[in-house]
Amino acid sequence: MFKQSATKLLELNEEKVKEWLESFDAVITDCDGVLWVYGDVIPGSVDVMNRFKDIGKKIFFCTNNSTKTRKELLTKSKNMGFNITEDEVISTANSLAAYLKARNFNKKAYVIGSEGITKELDAVGIDHNKVGPEHMPGSLLQYLSNNFELEDDIGAVLVGFDEYFSFPKMTKAASYLSRPECLFIATNTDERFPMPNMVVPGTGSFVRAIETCAERKATVIGKPNVAMCEHLINNGTIVPERTLMIGDRCNTDILLGYNCGFQTLLVGSGIHQLNDVDSWKASNDPELHKLIPDVYLPKLGDLLAYM
Amino acid sequence: MFKQSATKLLELNEEKVKEWLESFDAVITDCDGVLWVYGDVIPGSVDVMNRFKDIGKKIFFCTNNSTKTRKELLTKSKNMGFNITEDEVISTANSLAAYLKARNFNKKAYVIGSEGITKELDAVGIDHNKVGPEHMPGSLLQYLSNNFELEDDIGAVLVGFDEYFSFPKMTKAASYLSRPECLFIATNTDERFPMPNMVVPGTGSFVRAIETCAERKATVIGKPNVAMCEHLINNGTIVPERTLMIGDRCNTDILLGYNCGFQTLLVGSGIHQLNDVDSWKASNDPELHKLIPDVYLPKLGDLLAYM
Repeated sequence: MFKQSATKLLELNEEKVKEWLESFDAVITDCDGVLWVYGDVIPGSVDVMNRFKDIGKKIFFCTNNSTKTRKELLTKSKNMGFNITEDEVISTANSLAAYLKARNFNKKAYVIGSEGITKELDAVGIDHNKVGPEHMPGSLLQYLSNNFELEDDIGAVLVGFDEYFSFPKMTKAASYLSRPECLFIATNTDERFPMPNMVVPGTGSFVRAIETCAERKATVIGKPNVAMCEHLINNGTIVPERTLMIGDRCNTDILLGYNCGFQTLLVGSGIHQLNDVDSWKASNDPELHKLIPDVYLPKLGDLLAYM
Repeated sequence: MFKQSATKLLELNEEKVKEWLESFDAVITDCDGVLWVYGDVIPGSVDVMNRFKDIGKKIFFCTNNSTKTRKELLTKSKNMGFNITEDEVISTANSLAAYLKARNFNKKAYVIGSEGITKELDAVGIDHNKVGPEHMPGSLLQYLSNNFELEDDIGAVLVGFDEYFSFPKMTKAASYLSRPECLFIATNTDERFPMPNMVVPGTGSFVRAIETCAERKATVIGKPNVAMCEHLINNGTIVPERTLMIGDRCNTDILLGYNCGFQTLLVGSGIHQLNDVDSWKASNDPELHKLIPDVYLPKLGDLLAYM
């Protein structure tokens, strides 16, 4: 229905909207900009998501934010009133582990990141190094001649947020990545987190550092990579053409929907607006056409009237 | 003489070559690929450089290699038989300090790098932090709430090779760089140093990391930036139109010569060859025309016959 037409749902008659509501069995939604903005719920979003669940639709919260574990995201969601479980949270760390598992990865992973990643690896039985501090032990010469050891069985370098990012970690990552068969995967590429009076580096800055010294590009698991949802498709949890992707950012959320063959809904409560969509429609660039959602709503809460 | 014509010196008559030899008073030469290849002298290069000096020309060795101090480069050169002094070595760390001095920089510098940089800053009276290990003291939350302090008087972030590169250094650099007036300067952007069985990250990988989280581009001091030689021009040591730049890599050496208004000589003992030059001549891109040298020699030692 409404394939890549950016149809305004509020301009349709009630029957047509209800028909659309029955065209999907699963709902995957972005969080920031759709459900909430920072700590504030966007009015109506809790009622709509809980109503979806009540009427039997599968729901999933899907975020590129790798600074929160699934549990932390779950706690935040529950505190806001969302009726959701941990299995219904799709995070980049979780998808990363699922991505490796789906490829029958049976070597060891070298992780630059936190326990957010290693716990997900443990859950699917993938061996890994211990994360945490890894300081430069002395001079470069000492390090290279005495302290430097590579493990033979490392088959993947995984990069997520790591406040212990360091030269020895970079050296190991780049060295492992000189093995052509070694996978190179990043959870996301957020550049940074601006805060009052300071800037906290994001995963993207670690990824760029390692891409530079490894002279290789990382596979980025986060939206719009289908890796975020492929485990749900592969194990039959969702059927793409009967799945709705909801988002506020077209180059991550809507494009993920396009890449997975989902239906798509853009809400105007975050980044992109209808005038952005109009400019993509007018363009001759087929890449931009992929960003056009099927349908549009000012905000998710507007759906409540039809449910 | 011969401006951007890539004239083959060996095809000229002796008188014309001697006239050319008299058209410059100073010689600035790249090292690797012109004077030596790794540890091996390129035949004739020692005799030619020493002869230049004997007949009264000023000579300078100019390298983007920031892993060696000027003293180390001096020792290597002397051991090969070159008659050269420390003042005749142009290094990125030295040029970085001169660059700041020339701009009357009077604040403090935050250095990610080694004493190779801080000693050069000391020499021109520029205050700086202490380089060396700066480990993450505990968790991110502890760091951000207890251990994080910025100094008010930092006016530049300088990035060179630093085996103690770490998350706290990145955080400080990105935070200082959120001050619009703070300078952001890198010595060079070499990506990495491949070694047997391992890869050592280069300055370029640190620069890209900080550029990503700071959302700013660094000024790179190394060739082809005129900053490498501007102090020699500004203090009258060399006169651009009577200075010869010798190199084997056109996008660094010859372009530096172009940018400074020097005469240029490409030698074929390293990276670029005459067929590269021919392709640039045939191009309509004015940027590629800047890479065309005035004159060409298979190797520097070929000049000896005319001296």
